[in-house]
Amino acid sequence: MRPVIAIHGGAGVMRRDKPGEQQRVVLKQALEAAYEQKTALDAVTAAVVVLEDSPLFNAGRGSCFNADGEIEMDASIMDGEGLRAGAVAAVKRIRNPVLAARAVMEKTRHVLLAGSGAERFARAQGLTLENPSYFATEKRLSALKRNLKYHHGTVGAVAQDQDGNLAAATSTGGYTGKLPGRIGDSPLIGAGNYADNRACAVSGTGLGEAFIRAAVAYDVAARMRYRKEPLGKAAAAALANVARLGGDGGLIAVDRRGNVAMPFNSEGMYRASIDRRGKTTIEIF
Amino acid sequence: MRPVIAIHGGAGVMRRDKPGEQQRVVLKQALEAAYEQKTALDAVTAAVVVLEDSPLFNAGRGSCFNADGEIEMDASIMDGEGLRAGAVAAVKRIRNPVLAARAVMEKTRHVLLAGSGAERFARAQGLTLENPSYFATEKRLSALKRNLKYHHGTVGAVAQDQDGNLAAATSTGGYTGKLPGRIGDSPLIGAGNYADNRACAVSGTGLGEAFIRAAVAYDVAARMRYRKEPLGKAAAAALANVARLGGDGGLIAVDRRGNVAMPFNSEGMYRASIDRRGKTTIEIF
Repeated sequence: MRPVIAIHGGAGVMRRDKPGEQQRVVLKQALEAAYEQKTALDAVTAAVVVLEDSPLFNAGRGSCFNADGEIEMDASIMDGEGLRAGAVAAVKRIRNPVLAARAVMEKTRHVLLAGSGAERFARAQGLTLENPSYFATEKRLSALKRNLKYHHGTVGAVAQDQDGNLAAATSTGGYTGKLPGRIGDSPLIGAGNYADNRACAVSGTGLGEAFIRAAVAYDVAARMRYRKEPLGKAAAAALANVARLGGDGGLIAVDRRGNVAMPFNSEGMYRASIDRRGKTTIEIF
Repeated sequence: MRPVIAIHGGAGVMRRDKPGEQQRVVLKQALEAAYEQKTALDAVTAAVVVLEDSPLFNAGRGSCFNADGEIEMDASIMDGEGLRAGAVAAVKRIRNPVLAARAVMEKTRHVLLAGSGAERFARAQGLTLENPSYFATEKRLSALKRNLKYHHGTVGAVAQDQDGNLAAATSTGGYTGKLPGRIGDSPLIGAGNYADNRACAVSGTGLGEAFIRAAVAYDVAARMRYRKEPLGKAAAAALANVARLGGDGGLIAVDRRGNVAMPFNSEGMYRASIDRRGKTTIEIF
Protein backbone atom coordinates (compact mmCIF):
# COMPACT_ATOMS: atom_id res chain seq x y z
CA MET A 1 0.00 0.00 0.00
CA ARG A 2 1.06 3.61 -0.53
CA PRO A 3 2.06 5.69 2.46
CA VAL A 4 -0.47 8.08 3.97
CA ILE A 5 0.71 11.19 5.80
CA ALA A 6 -1.04 14.03 7.58
CA ILE A 7 0.63 16.94 9.34
CA HIS A 8 -0.47 20.00 11.25
CA GLY A 9 1.13 23.28 12.24
CA GLY A 10 -1.27 24.23 15.00
CA ALA A 11 -4.85 25.38 15.40
CA GLY A 12 -6.20 28.65 16.72
CA VAL A 13 -7.28 32.12 15.74
CA MET A 14 -6.04 32.81 12.23
CA ARG A 15 -6.00 36.06 10.31
CA ARG A 16 -7.97 35.63 7.14
CA ASP A 17 -6.31 38.73 5.67
CA LYS A 18 -2.98 36.87 5.73
CA PRO A 19 -2.93 34.03 3.23
CA GLY A 20 -0.23 32.08 5.08
CA GLU A 21 1.86 31.52 1.96
CA GLN A 22 5.06 31.08 3.96
CA GLN A 23 3.42 28.49 6.20
CA ARG A 24 2.09 26.60 3.17
CA VAL A 25 5.62 26.36 1.76
CA VAL A 26 6.96 24.85 4.99
CA LEU A 27 4.00 22.46 5.31
CA LYS A 28 4.75 21.25 1.78
CA GLN A 29 8.43 20.77 2.64
CA ALA A 30 7.46 18.80 5.74
CA LEU A 31 5.11 16.56 3.74
CA GLU A 32 7.79 15.91 1.13
CA ALA A 33 10.40 15.12 3.77
CA ALA A 34 7.98 12.61 5.30
CA TYR A 35 7.04 11.05 1.97
CA GLU A 36 10.68 10.17 1.25
CA GLN A 37 10.87 7.91 4.30
CA LYS A 38 10.24 4.18 4.32
CA THR A 39 8.64 3.79 7.74
CA ALA A 40 5.81 5.62 9.45
CA LEU A 41 8.13 6.34 12.35
CA ASP A 42 10.72 7.95 10.08
CA ALA A 43 8.00 9.85 8.23
CA VAL A 44 6.52 11.53 11.31
CA THR A 45 10.02 12.25 12.63
CA ALA A 46 11.10 13.89 9.37
CA ALA A 47 7.96 16.01 9.09
CA VAL A 48 8.21 17.29 12.64
CA VAL A 49 11.92 18.11 12.29
CA VAL A 50 11.09 20.38 9.31
CA LEU A 51 8.34 22.10 11.29
CA GLU A 52 10.56 22.46 14.40
CA ASP A 53 13.32 24.04 12.30
CA SER A 54 10.97 26.67 10.91
CA PRO A 55 10.54 29.86 12.96
CA LEU A 56 6.96 30.09 11.65
CA PHE A 57 5.48 27.41 13.92
CA ASN A 58 5.37 27.19 17.69
CA ALA A 59 7.76 24.27 18.18
CA GLY A 60 11.54 24.00 18.17
CA ARG A 61 13.00 27.22 16.79
CA GLY A 62 9.69 29.10 16.77
CA SER A 63 8.71 28.22 20.32
CA CYS A 64 6.95 30.89 22.32
CA PHE A 65 8.00 32.24 25.69
CA ASN A 66 6.79 31.37 29.15
CA ALA A 67 6.11 33.84 31.95
CA ASP A 68 9.85 33.98 32.71
CA GLY A 69 10.67 34.91 29.10
CA GLU A 70 12.20 31.48 28.51
CA ILE A 71 11.17 28.74 26.14
CA GLU A 72 10.27 25.27 27.39
CA MET A 73 9.46 22.71 24.74
CA ASP A 74 7.54 19.42 24.84
CA ALA A 75 7.52 16.60 22.28
CA SER A 76 6.55 12.96 21.93
CA ILE A 77 6.55 10.12 19.45
CA MET A 78 4.77 6.78 19.37
CA ASP A 79 5.15 3.66 17.25
CA GLY A 80 1.81 1.94 16.64
CA GLU A 81 3.59 -1.40 16.38
CA GLY A 82 4.25 -2.55 19.93
CA LEU A 83 3.01 0.69 21.47
CA ARG A 84 6.54 1.98 21.97
CA ALA A 85 6.69 5.63 23.01
CA GLY A 86 9.11 8.37 24.01
CA ALA A 87 8.78 11.99 25.07
CA VAL A 88 10.57 14.99 26.51
CA ALA A 89 9.08 17.91 28.42
CA ALA A 90 10.13 21.35 29.57
CA VAL A 91 13.41 21.28 27.63
CA LYS A 92 15.07 24.61 26.85
CA ARG A 93 17.99 23.91 24.57
CA ILE A 94 17.32 20.86 22.40
CA ARG A 95 17.18 21.91 18.75
CA ASN A 96 14.78 19.12 17.77
CA PRO A 97 12.76 17.86 20.72
CA VAL A 98 11.16 15.17 18.54
CA LEU A 99 14.59 13.59 18.03
CA ALA A 100 15.12 13.56 21.79
CA ALA A 101 11.69 11.96 22.24
CA ARG A 102 12.65 9.29 19.74
CA ALA A 103 15.94 8.68 21.55
CA VAL A 104 14.06 8.26 24.84
CA MET A 105 11.91 5.65 23.11
CA GLU A 106 14.77 3.78 21.50
CA LYS A 107 17.59 4.15 24.02
CA THR A 108 16.02 4.11 27.49
CA ARG A 109 13.56 2.11 29.57
CA HIS A 110 11.60 5.30 30.15
CA VAL A 111 8.84 7.04 28.23
CA LEU A 112 9.12 10.62 29.49
CA LEU A 113 12.15 12.66 30.55
CA ALA A 114 11.84 16.29 31.63
CA GLY A 115 13.98 19.36 32.18
CA SER A 116 17.73 19.29 32.67
CA GLY A 117 17.75 15.50 32.97
CA ALA A 118 16.27 15.27 29.48
CA GLU A 119 18.84 17.73 28.15
CA ARG A 120 21.72 15.84 29.71
CA PHE A 121 20.38 12.68 28.08
CA ALA A 122 20.01 14.41 24.70
CA ARG A 123 23.57 15.70 24.88
CA ALA A 124 24.87 12.23 25.71
CA GLN A 125 22.98 10.95 22.65
CA GLY A 126 24.82 13.44 20.47
CA LEU A 127 21.78 15.57 19.72
CA THR A 128 22.28 19.24 18.93
CA LEU A 129 21.72 21.72 21.74
CA GLU A 130 21.27 25.40 20.95
CA ASN A 131 21.86 28.57 22.90
CA PRO A 132 18.77 30.57 23.88
CA SER A 133 19.60 33.03 21.06
CA TYR A 134 18.73 30.35 18.48
CA PHE A 135 15.15 30.32 19.73
CA ALA A 136 14.88 33.92 20.86
CA THR A 137 15.79 36.41 18.19
CA GLU A 138 14.49 39.90 18.92
CA LYS A 139 12.34 39.66 15.85
CA ARG A 140 10.76 36.42 16.95
CA LEU A 141 10.23 37.65 20.51
CA SER A 142 8.49 40.72 19.17
CA ALA A 143 6.41 38.70 16.73
CA LEU A 144 5.37 36.30 19.44
CA LYS A 145 4.32 39.15 21.66
CA ARG A 146 2.20 40.59 18.88
CA ASN A 147 0.71 37.20 18.08
CA LEU A 148 -0.44 36.26 21.53
CA LYS A 149 -3.71 35.07 20.06
CA TYR A 150 -1.91 32.23 18.30
CA HIS A 151 -1.63 30.62 21.68
CA HIS A 152 -2.29 27.04 20.61
CA GLY A 153 0.64 26.53 18.29
CA THR A 154 1.77 22.94 18.07
CA VAL A 155 3.07 20.83 15.24
CA GLY A 156 2.50 17.17 14.57
CA ALA A 157 2.41 14.35 12.08
CA VAL A 158 0.69 11.00 11.70
CA ALA A 159 1.52 8.38 9.09
CA GLN A 160 0.84 4.92 7.82
CA ASP A 161 3.66 3.25 5.90
CA GLN A 162 3.62 0.65 3.15
CA ASP A 163 3.69 -2.15 5.75
CA GLY A 164 0.57 -0.77 7.42
CA ASN A 165 2.37 0.48 10.52
CA LEU A 166 1.12 3.65 12.16
CA ALA A 167 3.07 6.35 13.99
CA ALA A 168 2.42 9.77 15.51
CA ALA A 169 4.64 12.66 16.63
CA THR A 170 3.80 15.98 18.30
CA SER A 171 5.99 18.93 19.31
CA THR A 172 5.28 22.33 20.85
CA GLY A 173 6.57 25.39 22.61
CA GLY A 174 3.43 25.50 24.71
CA TYR A 175 1.81 28.89 24.92
CA THR A 176 2.98 32.40 25.60
CA GLY A 177 2.96 33.34 29.26
CA LYS A 178 2.54 29.81 30.61
CA LEU A 179 3.91 29.19 34.09
CA PRO A 180 7.50 27.91 34.14
CA GLY A 181 7.45 24.12 34.33
CA ARG A 182 4.00 23.84 32.74
CA ILE A 183 3.72 20.68 30.67
CA GLY A 184 0.92 20.44 28.14
CA ASP A 185 -0.64 17.54 26.29
CA SER A 186 1.93 17.25 23.50
CA PRO A 187 4.43 15.04 25.40
CA LEU A 188 1.72 13.06 27.17
CA ILE A 189 0.98 9.70 25.55
CA GLY A 190 -2.80 9.36 25.30
CA ALA A 191 -3.45 13.10 25.61
CA GLY A 192 -1.82 14.89 22.65
CA ASN A 193 -0.29 11.88 20.90
CA TYR A 194 -1.09 8.20 20.42
CA ALA A 195 -0.53 5.42 17.92
CA ASP A 196 -1.83 1.85 17.93
CA ASN A 197 -1.73 -0.32 14.81
CA ARG A 198 -5.04 -1.86 15.90
CA ALA A 199 -6.81 1.51 15.64
CA CYS A 200 -5.18 4.78 14.58
CA ALA A 201 -2.45 7.37 15.03
CA VAL A 202 -3.39 10.78 16.46
CA SER A 203 -1.67 14.14 17.02
CA GLY A 204 -3.53 16.97 18.72
CA THR A 205 -3.26 20.74 18.91
CA GLY A 206 -5.24 23.12 21.07
CA LEU A 207 -5.83 23.95 24.70
CA GLY A 208 -3.55 21.28 26.09
CA GLU A 209 -5.16 21.13 29.51
CA ALA A 210 -8.51 20.11 28.00
CA PHE A 211 -6.81 17.48 25.84
CA ILE A 212 -5.20 16.02 28.99
CA ARG A 213 -8.43 15.94 31.01
CA ALA A 214 -10.32 14.24 28.17
CA ALA A 215 -7.42 11.91 27.20
CA VAL A 216 -8.20 12.91 23.63
CA ALA A 217 -5.66 10.94 21.61
CA TYR A 218 -6.33 7.67 23.42
CA ASP A 219 -10.06 8.36 23.32
CA VAL A 220 -10.04 8.31 19.51
CA ALA A 221 -8.42 4.85 19.57
CA ALA A 222 -10.73 3.62 22.35
CA ARG A 223 -13.84 4.69 20.47
CA MET A 224 -12.63 2.87 17.36
CA ARG A 225 -11.72 -0.31 19.23
CA TYR A 226 -14.52 -0.48 21.80
CA ARG A 227 -17.43 1.14 19.95
CA LYS A 228 -16.39 0.31 16.38
CA GLU A 229 -16.76 3.97 15.45
CA PRO A 230 -15.19 4.93 12.12
CA LEU A 231 -12.19 7.27 12.32
CA GLY A 232 -14.04 10.43 11.38
CA LYS A 233 -16.77 9.90 13.95
CA ALA A 234 -14.31 8.93 16.70
CA ALA A 235 -12.08 11.93 16.01
CA ALA A 236 -15.03 14.34 16.02
CA ALA A 237 -16.44 12.89 19.24
CA ALA A 238 -13.08 13.08 21.04
CA LEU A 239 -12.68 16.69 19.96
CA ALA A 240 -16.24 17.48 21.10
CA ASN A 241 -15.12 16.56 24.65
CA VAL A 242 -12.48 19.29 24.41
CA ALA A 243 -15.16 21.81 23.48
CA ARG A 244 -17.30 20.60 26.39
CA LEU A 245 -14.39 21.43 28.72
CA GLY A 246 -14.22 24.94 27.30
CA GLY A 247 -11.27 24.25 25.02
CA ASP A 248 -10.65 24.52 21.33
CA GLY A 249 -8.18 23.03 18.91
CA GLY A 250 -7.98 20.21 16.44
CA LEU A 251 -6.35 16.92 15.67
CA ILE A 252 -5.06 14.88 12.80
CA ALA A 253 -5.50 11.14 12.61
CA VAL A 254 -4.95 8.22 10.26
CA ASP A 255 -6.47 4.79 10.79
CA ARG A 256 -5.25 1.34 9.84
CA ARG A 257 -7.13 1.48 6.55
CA GLY A 258 -5.39 4.69 5.58
CA ASN A 259 -8.35 6.97 6.19
CA VAL A 260 -7.44 10.50 7.31
CA ALA A 261 -9.42 12.84 9.59
CA MET A 262 -8.40 16.41 10.43
CA PRO A 263 -11.23 17.96 12.47
CA PHE A 264 -10.85 21.27 14.33
CA ASN A 265 -13.21 23.53 16.24
CA SER A 266 -11.00 26.61 16.16
CA GLU A 267 -11.01 29.23 13.44
CA GLY A 268 -8.31 27.48 11.49
CA MET A 269 -5.69 24.76 11.58
CA TYR A 270 -2.55 24.62 9.47
CA ARG A 271 -2.77 21.17 7.93
CA ALA A 272 -1.67 19.10 4.98
CA SER A 273 -1.91 15.51 3.85
CA ILE A 274 -1.06 12.98 1.20
CA ASP A 275 -3.80 10.39 0.94
CA ARG A 276 -3.89 6.80 -0.32
CA ARG A 277 -4.19 7.94 -3.90
CA GLY A 278 -1.17 10.23 -3.60
CA LYS A 279 -3.34 13.36 -3.56
CA THR A 280 -1.85 16.30 -1.67
CA THR A 281 -3.90 18.94 0.13
CA ILE A 282 -2.66 21.96 2.10
CA GLU A 283 -5.26 24.00 3.98
CA ILE A 284 -5.60 26.56 6.74
CA PHE A 285 -9.33 27.36 7.11
CA MET B 1 -25.02 6.91 50.51
CA ARG B 2 -22.03 5.98 52.64
CA PRO B 3 -18.57 6.89 51.48
CA VAL B 4 -16.43 4.23 49.79
CA ILE B 5 -12.66 4.46 49.99
CA ALA B 6 -9.82 2.33 48.63
CA ILE B 7 -6.12 3.03 49.04
CA HIS B 8 -2.86 1.39 48.01
CA GLY B 9 0.73 1.59 49.12
CA GLY B 10 2.33 0.10 46.03
CA ALA B 11 2.62 -3.24 44.30
CA GLY B 12 5.67 -5.38 43.69
CA VAL B 13 7.79 -8.14 45.10
CA MET B 14 6.89 -8.61 48.75
CA ARG B 15 8.63 -10.66 51.42
CA ARG B 16 6.20 -13.17 52.79
CA ASP B 17 8.43 -13.66 55.84
CA LYS B 18 7.73 -10.06 56.84
CA PRO B 19 4.14 -9.56 57.90
CA GLY B 20 4.09 -5.83 57.11
CA GLU B 21 2.56 -4.90 60.45
CA GLN B 22 3.98 -1.38 60.31
CA GLN B 23 2.56 -0.84 56.84
CA ARG B 24 -0.85 -2.11 57.96
CA VAL B 25 -0.90 0.45 60.77
CA VAL B 26 -0.22 3.31 58.35
CA LEU B 27 -2.75 2.01 55.82
CA LYS B 28 -5.35 2.01 58.60
CA GLN B 29 -4.42 5.56 59.59
CA ALA B 30 -4.74 6.67 55.98
CA LEU B 31 -8.17 5.03 55.65
CA GLU B 32 -9.37 6.68 58.84
CA ALA B 33 -8.08 10.08 57.77
CA ALA B 34 -9.96 9.69 54.50
CA TYR B 35 -13.16 8.49 56.15
CA GLU B 36 -13.38 11.65 58.27
CA GLN B 37 -13.67 13.85 55.17
CA LYS B 38 -16.91 14.98 53.60
CA THR B 39 -15.92 14.98 49.93
CA ALA B 40 -14.21 12.39 47.77
CA LEU B 41 -11.60 14.97 46.85
CA ASP B 42 -10.78 15.65 50.50
CA ALA B 43 -10.78 11.93 51.26
CA VAL B 44 -8.20 10.99 48.62
CA THR B 45 -6.10 14.01 49.57
CA ALA B 46 -6.11 13.10 53.27
CA ALA B 47 -5.24 9.45 52.63
CA VAL B 48 -2.34 10.28 50.35
CA VAL B 49 -0.95 12.88 52.77
CA VAL B 50 -0.75 10.19 55.49
CA LEU B 51 1.00 7.80 53.10
CA GLU B 52 3.39 10.52 51.87
CA ASP B 53 4.31 11.42 55.45
CA SER B 54 5.25 7.82 56.26
CA PRO B 55 8.82 6.74 55.50
CA LEU B 56 7.48 3.22 54.82
CA PHE B 57 6.05 3.95 51.38
CA ASN B 58 7.72 5.22 48.24
CA ALA B 59 6.13 8.66 48.07
CA GLY B 60 6.80 11.92 49.87
CA ARG B 61 9.15 11.25 52.78
CA GLY B 62 9.88 7.64 51.79
CA SER B 63 10.70 8.42 48.15
CA CYS B 64 13.51 6.43 46.58
CA PHE B 65 16.57 7.85 44.89
CA ASN B 66 17.28 8.40 41.22
CA ALA B 67 20.59 7.68 39.48
CA ASP B 68 21.98 10.97 40.81
CA GLY B 69 21.13 10.04 44.40
CA GLU B 70 18.37 12.64 44.49
CA ILE B 71 14.66 12.20 44.94
CA GLU B 72 12.18 13.41 42.31
CA MET B 73 8.53 12.98 43.17
CA ASP B 74 5.38 12.88 41.00
CA ALA B 75 1.75 13.25 42.09
CA SER B 76 -1.67 13.94 40.65
CA ILE B 77 -5.27 14.37 41.68
CA MET B 78 -8.52 14.35 39.71
CA ASP B 79 -12.08 15.34 40.55
CA GLY B 80 -14.63 13.13 38.80
CA GLU B 81 -17.11 15.99 38.76
CA GLY B 82 -16.13 18.24 35.88
CA LEU B 83 -12.95 16.30 35.11
CA ARG B 84 -10.79 18.83 36.94
CA ALA B 85 -7.20 17.68 37.41
CA GLY B 86 -3.84 18.81 38.75
CA ALA B 87 -0.38 17.29 38.95
CA VAL B 88 3.27 17.93 39.71
CA ALA B 89 6.29 16.04 38.41
CA ALA B 90 9.99 15.76 39.19
CA VAL B 91 9.74 17.88 42.33
CA LYS B 92 12.51 17.52 44.92
CA ARG B 93 11.49 19.49 47.98
CA ILE B 94 7.71 19.56 48.35
CA ARG B 95 6.72 17.75 51.54
CA ASN B 96 3.33 16.65 50.18
CA PRO B 97 3.28 16.52 46.39
CA VAL B 98 -0.44 15.66 46.42
CA LEU B 99 -1.18 19.04 48.02
CA ALA B 100 0.82 20.74 45.27
CA ALA B 101 -1.13 18.75 42.66
CA ARG B 102 -4.36 19.91 44.22
CA ALA B 103 -3.16 23.53 44.23
CA VAL B 104 -2.31 23.25 40.53
CA MET B 105 -5.86 22.03 39.94
CA GLU B 106 -7.54 24.69 42.04
CA LYS B 107 -5.31 27.72 41.58
CA THR B 108 -3.96 27.61 38.02
CA ARG B 109 -5.17 27.17 34.46
CA HIS B 110 -2.70 24.31 34.08
CA VAL B 111 -2.88 20.59 34.80
CA LEU B 112 0.79 19.65 35.14
CA LEU B 113 3.75 21.63 36.50
CA ALA B 114 7.22 20.11 36.70
CA GLY B 115 10.56 20.73 38.37
CA SER B 116 11.65 24.02 39.84
CA GLY B 117 8.66 25.82 38.34
CA ALA B 118 6.36 23.52 40.29
CA GLU B 119 8.36 24.12 43.48
CA ARG B 120 8.27 27.87 43.05
CA PHE B 121 4.49 27.63 42.61
CA ALA B 122 4.16 25.42 45.70
CA ARG B 123 6.17 27.87 47.79
CA ALA B 124 4.00 30.76 46.60
CA GLN B 125 0.95 28.73 47.66
CA GLY B 126 2.36 28.42 51.17
CA LEU B 127 3.04 24.70 50.95
CA THR B 128 5.81 23.21 53.07
CA LEU B 129 9.15 22.59 51.38
CA GLU B 130 11.71 20.32 53.04
CA ASN B 131 15.46 20.05 52.84
CA PRO B 132 16.88 16.93 51.19
CA SER B 133 17.69 15.58 54.67
CA TYR B 134 13.95 15.18 55.39
CA PHE B 135 13.69 12.65 52.58
CA ALA B 136 17.19 11.18 52.76
CA THR B 137 18.11 9.93 56.18
CA GLU B 138 21.06 7.56 56.15
CA LYS B 139 18.79 4.84 57.43
CA ARG B 140 16.27 5.35 54.65
CA LEU B 141 18.95 5.57 51.97
CA SER B 142 20.44 2.32 53.20
CA ALA B 143 17.05 0.66 53.42
CA LEU B 144 16.17 1.76 49.94
CA LYS B 145 19.40 0.37 48.60
CA ARG B 146 18.69 -2.94 50.24
CA ASN B 147 15.13 -2.97 48.99
CA LEU B 148 15.80 -2.34 45.35
CA LYS B 149 13.26 -4.99 44.51
CA TYR B 150 10.45 -2.78 45.82
CA HIS B 151 10.93 -0.76 42.72
CA HIS B 152 7.26 -0.08 42.01
CA GLY B 153 6.35 1.76 45.15
CA THR B 154 3.53 4.24 44.68
CA VAL B 155 0.66 5.31 46.88
CA GLY B 156 -2.85 6.24 45.90
CA ALA B 157 -6.46 6.58 46.88
CA VAL B 158 -9.86 6.52 45.20
CA ALA B 159 -13.13 7.47 46.81
CA GLN B 160 -16.81 8.02 46.33
CA ASP B 161 -18.48 10.47 48.69
CA GLN B 162 -22.04 10.68 50.00
CA ASP B 163 -23.05 12.84 47.03
CA GLY B 164 -21.80 10.19 44.61
CA ASN B 165 -18.78 12.17 43.45
CA LEU B 166 -15.63 10.27 42.59
CA ALA B 167 -11.99 11.31 43.02
CA ALA B 168 -8.53 9.78 42.62
CA ALA B 169 -5.05 10.71 43.81
CA THR B 170 -1.66 9.10 43.17
CA SER B 171 1.84 9.94 44.46
CA THR B 172 5.25 8.36 44.03
CA GLY B 173 9.00 8.67 44.32
CA GLY B 174 9.38 6.71 41.09
CA TYR B 175 11.90 3.94 41.26
CA THR B 176 15.44 3.56 42.49
CA GLY B 177 18.05 4.39 39.89
CA LYS B 178 15.69 6.03 37.40
CA LEU B 179 17.26 8.62 35.10
CA PRO B 180 17.09 12.19 36.44
CA GLY B 181 14.03 13.89 34.99
CA ARG B 182 12.16 10.63 34.43
CA ILE B 183 8.43 11.10 34.85
CA GLY B 184 6.29 8.01 35.41
CA ASP B 185 2.59 7.38 35.10
CA SER B 186 1.56 8.72 38.52
CA PRO B 187 1.28 12.41 37.52
CA LEU B 188 -0.14 11.65 34.08
CA ILE B 189 -3.91 11.98 33.87
CA GLY B 190 -5.23 8.91 32.05
CA ALA B 191 -2.12 6.81 32.75
CA GLY B 192 -1.72 6.37 36.52
CA ASN B 193 -4.73 8.40 37.67
CA TYR B 194 -8.22 9.20 36.40
CA ALA B 195 -11.66 10.06 37.75
CA ASP B 196 -14.93 10.57 35.90
CA ASN B 197 -18.27 10.57 37.71
CA ARG B 198 -19.80 8.88 34.65
CA ALA B 199 -17.57 5.81 35.11
CA CYS B 200 -14.99 5.35 37.87
CA ALA B 201 -11.95 6.63 39.74
CA VAL B 202 -8.62 4.82 39.28
CA SER B 203 -5.15 4.94 40.84
CA GLY B 204 -2.38 2.71 39.49
CA THR B 205 0.91 1.32 40.74
CA GLY B 206 3.50 -0.65 38.84
CA LEU B 207 5.87 -0.31 35.92
CA GLY B 208 4.89 3.25 35.05
CA GLU B 209 6.10 3.13 31.47
CA ALA B 210 3.68 0.30 30.64
CA PHE B 211 0.83 2.15 32.34
CA ILE B 212 1.57 5.18 30.15
CA ARG B 213 1.76 3.23 26.88
CA ALA B 214 -1.54 1.45 27.63
CA ALA B 215 -3.27 4.57 29.07
CA VAL B 216 -4.43 2.28 31.86
CA ALA B 217 -6.46 4.59 34.09
CA TYR B 218 -8.42 6.09 31.21
CA ASP B 219 -8.80 2.66 29.64
CA VAL B 220 -10.75 1.41 32.67
CA ALA B 221 -13.19 4.32 32.28
CA ALA B 222 -13.38 3.87 28.49
CA ARG B 223 -14.19 0.18 28.80
CA MET B 224 -16.97 0.95 31.25
CA ARG B 225 -18.45 3.76 29.16
CA TYR B 226 -17.98 2.36 25.66
CA ARG B 227 -18.27 -1.39 26.20
CA LYS B 228 -20.49 -1.36 29.28
CA GLU B 229 -18.02 -3.60 31.08
CA PRO B 230 -18.53 -3.86 34.84
CA LEU B 231 -15.75 -2.33 36.97
CA GLY B 232 -14.03 -5.59 37.85
CA LYS B 233 -13.83 -6.76 34.26
CA ALA B 234 -12.68 -3.37 32.97
CA ALA B 235 -9.99 -3.07 35.66
CA ALA B 236 -8.68 -6.58 34.98
CA ALA B 237 -8.62 -6.04 31.21
CA ALA B 238 -6.76 -2.73 31.53
CA LEU B 239 -4.20 -4.36 33.82
CA ALA B 240 -3.82 -7.27 31.38
CA ASN B 241 -2.55 -4.76 28.81
CA VAL B 242 0.24 -3.84 31.24
CA ALA B 243 1.23 -7.50 31.48
CA ARG B 244 1.17 -7.76 27.68
CA LEU B 245 3.73 -4.93 27.57
CA GLY B 246 5.95 -6.82 29.98
CA GLY B 247 4.97 -4.84 33.05
CA ASP B 248 3.49 -5.69 36.39
CA GLY B 249 1.62 -3.80 39.04
CA GLY B 250 -1.90 -3.19 40.17
CA LEU B 251 -4.63 -0.63 40.47
CA ILE B 252 -7.46 0.37 42.74
CA ALA B 253 -10.77 1.60 41.41
CA VAL B 254 -14.25 2.56 42.58
CA ASP B 255 -17.20 3.01 40.24
CA ARG B 256 -20.24 5.25 40.46
CA ARG B 257 -22.24 2.51 42.16
CA GLY B 258 -19.64 2.20 44.91
CA ASN B 259 -18.14 -1.07 43.70
CA VAL B 260 -14.44 -1.50 44.44
CA ALA B 261 -11.83 -3.42 42.41
CA MET B 262 -8.20 -3.87 43.47
CA PRO B 263 -6.56 -6.22 40.93
CA PHE B 264 -2.78 -6.76 40.75
CA ASN B 265 -0.51 -9.08 38.81
CA SER B 266 2.55 -8.65 41.02
CA GLU B 267 3.33 -10.73 44.07
CA GLY B 268 1.54 -8.37 46.38
CA MET B 269 -0.03 -4.95 46.72
CA TYR B 270 -0.44 -3.00 49.93
CA ARG B 271 -4.13 -2.14 49.89
CA ALA B 272 -7.06 -1.31 52.10
CA SER B 273 -10.67 -0.30 51.66
CA ILE B 274 -13.90 0.64 53.37
CA ASP B 275 -16.85 -0.56 51.34
CA ARG B 276 -20.49 0.54 51.08
CA ARG B 277 -21.41 -1.42 54.19
CA GLY B 278 -18.62 0.17 56.23
CA LYS B 279 -16.54 -3.00 56.17
CA THR B 280 -12.78 -2.45 56.39
CA THR B 281 -10.18 -4.73 54.79
CA ILE B 282 -6.38 -4.38 54.87
CA GLU B 283 -4.37 -6.81 52.74
CA ILE B 284 -0.94 -7.31 51.23
CA PHE B 285 -1.00 -10.62 49.33
